[in-house]
Amino acid sequence: MERSRRWFLRASALWSSAAVACRGGPPAEPRSIGTPVSVYGSRSRFEQARRDFDRNTRVPLEEAASRTPLHDTYGIITPSSLHFERHHSGVPEIDPAAHVLTIHGLVDRPLVFTVDELKRLPSVSRIHFLECSGNSAGEWRGGSTESSVQRIHGLTSCSEWTGVSVALLLRECGAHADAAWVLAEGADASKHDRSIPMQKMMDDAMVAYGQNGEPLRPEQGYPLRLLLPGWEGNSNVKWLRRLKVMDQPAMSREETSKYTDLMPDGTARQFTFVMEPKSLITRPSGGDRLPGAGAHEVTGLAWSGRGAIARVEITTDGGATWTAADLQAPVLPRAHTRFRWLWKWDGREAVIASRCTDETGYTQPPLGELIAIRGSNSFYHNNGIQTWKVASDGTITNGNRA
Amino acid sequence: MERSRRWFLRASALWSSAAVACRGGPPAEPRSIGTPVSVYGSRSRFEQARRDFDRNTRVPLEEAASRTPLHDTYGIITPSSLHFERHHSGVPEIDPAAHVLTIHGLVDRPLVFTVDELKRLPSVSRIHFLECSGNSAGEWRGGSTESSVQRIHGLTSCSEWTGVSVALLLRECGAHADAAWVLAEGADASKHDRSIPMQKMMDDAMVAYGQNGEPLRPEQGYPLRLLLPGWEGNSNVKWLRRLKVMDQPAMSREETSKYTDLMPDGTARQFTFVMEPKSLITRPSGGDRLPGAGAHEVTGLAWSGRGAIARVEITTDGGATWTAADLQAPVLPRAHTRFRWLWKWDGREAVIASRCTDETGYTQPPLGELIAIRGSNSFYHNNGIQTWKVASDGTITNGNRA
Repeated sequence: MERSRRWFLRASALWSSAAVACRGGPPAEPRSIGTPVSVYGSRSRFEQARRDFDRNTRVPLEEAASRTPLHDTYGIITPSSLHFERHHSGVPEIDPAAHVLTIHGLVDRPLVFTVDELKRLPSVSRIHFLECSGNSAGEWRGGSTESSVQRIHGLTSCSEWTGVSVALLLRECGAHADAAWVLAEGADASKHDRSIPMQKMMDDAMVAYGQNGEPLRPEQGYPLRLLLPGWEGNSNVKWLRRLKVMDQPAMSREETSKYTDLMPDGTARQFTFVMEPKSLITRPSGGDRLPGAGAHEVTGLAWSGRGAIARVEITTDGGATWTAADLQAPVLPRAHTRFRWLWKWDGREAVIASRCTDETGYTQPPLGELIAIRGSNSFYHNNGIQTWKVASDGTITNGNRA
Repeated sequence: MERSRRWFLRASALWSSAAVACRGGPPAEPRSIGTPVSVYGSRSRFEQARRDFDRNTRVPLEEAASRTPLHDTYGIITPSSLHFERHHSGVPEIDPAAHVLTIHGLVDRPLVFTVDELKRLPSVSRIHFLECSGNSAGEWRGGSTESSVQRIHGLTSCSEWTGVSVALLLRECGAHADAAWVLAEGADASKHDRSIPMQKMMDDAMVAYGQNGEPLRPEQGYPLRLLLPGWEGNSNVKWLRRLKVMDQPAMSREETSKYTDLMPDGTARQFTFVMEPKSLITRPSGGDRLPGAGAHEVTGLAWSGRGAIARVEITTDGGATWTAADLQAPVLPRAHTRFRWLWKWDGREAVIASRCTDETGYTQPPLGELIAIRGSNSFYHNNGIQTWKVASDGTITNGNRA
């Protein structure tokens, strides 16, 4: 872990101590001509933020997950190169000139669209988060030994997506009156698929081909992915090749043996698509070390699959009292929302956390309350409050563990 | 020019003709495992959108400009790799650990900040366009022979910027009562500098270190740049090393012999910082060819250095009549705003254009009106309406030329 990039804040006064006049000699300044303009830029060689993944597990890297360095990102847009990944059979290389989207099933006119044809249709662009429903899964047992916000919660990212409304496509195909579900299937080797309720498809679903101003990245489904704003990542089927309109769900592997939530009574919640409101303090966070008492900016992200974030509150006393944080504009529905709060740390032990409330009035629950209801079999959909424990020496660790 | 990527629209019906059922055999589908997760992603090898620049000019490529492929970008965020460039002495390679920002001059406490220190201060993130004041310069003589929107207007881009408020830094330094201007100087070999009014510095200026979620790109001033929302690109000094507080402008080369506007009477407008409201139809645009009469999406970008875009209108008859376009949310102040409009083309010659009005009530002027006032010596600050001429065969060319 590169300590210099972990954003811990300095002690004492907010900034006057962070700067001193008349340091040693001036830094080296470029005196020769730099490099010329270029066709496609890349980041400085001095920057090395990276997606994180386990290299020594039984899970092949082709079906692994990689996590966004949330403590090293700014604002609300996640750089496409650092967007989290979760693949079931690796990233296929698809030639867009040979790829088509087929829409069939309970429709009057089954249609096949090339990528170029989809790009010529009326388009829409929206900024939305994507979160894997398995994000934060390690905390379900009452807190893990992980300390890094990237390791614990890095399966969430946010992009500006551009594509075609699914409703437009389904209307053109003439979906039948008894159409209730649509099976979305990817072109990856494992043909990942999920059944999606017709209502969501007609509401705000899109077939996305753009991400952050340019074509989708291969890891995000190039050339086409289904984008279901606010719904769990795996339902946003990547490398989309087929939409089959049906009168019932397909009950595919991914919605029966996987991606269901086993409850304490042995039943399983199924089709739990919506990602509930969630927030995280990303800086300072586990692994950081505050250099001393004083003013420190506390910042992080909040999001809700149900709409816009209405409020984020911060506690520094383990949840006894809460204070409102500032929300950075723009605050968009189903998008990461950046919050900031200035903490005057007294140098004593503290337990800090954020909690958010969305525009529907839902407030992110304490992890303990969530576990009390969902039990010890849960894996997906952990949106509990993340607490960070600050020791008197400034060291920060995961505070979820009792 | 790659025709297949130029976004021209198909003829006849909007989309039913764009899709046919039961094409030839199914496309090749990946049947083997794809590539594994990775630490930092890159785009598909099938995508080749690129910044454009002249390779055979007397201008060395180190002080050239490269242009954003506006017809190949989506939404409002410009991919950092495709953000336009304009350098005076190339892109310096700066080690952030050795770089500092010095604030001095008419202040109580001259201060020197390291990059890490700046990153620990309270931060702000905002989505703003940057436009070179020399953008669209070739149209000042009444229309150029260029046809590509990238070639004519590609010196504008839009990013989410993150940094520290300049007002916060100047307050900490204790700027004197007679402080009226601040000289901003870059660390490039030519030490590019501009004098900025104190009022702008205290209003919304920031020292930016983040762009689209990650550190600034080298071409955009890594590790630090001045960000002056809505003001001409060259005043947003890159590779920022020094802010000198003064009681008058420095009258440096870049604000005397360069970056002034020579008027017909021989006087020069100086310190014309604000980029006036401007809009462009980016698709379809010069170089595209409409395949036939029918419905076509018309889309483009609008922006204003004075605030938010209030309205974008489209004409298809050379300005005789105008119709409101849809503005894609979010509509943010001093940011690119995406507009869309559905055009039912009758297949006859047409002259299409967009014009925007910002929240101050300023409406983008016809190019002729602008030239009538500014004369024939102008080079910078061309925000005139861009017309595209559509021939009956669907070919689109620059319509600015009389």
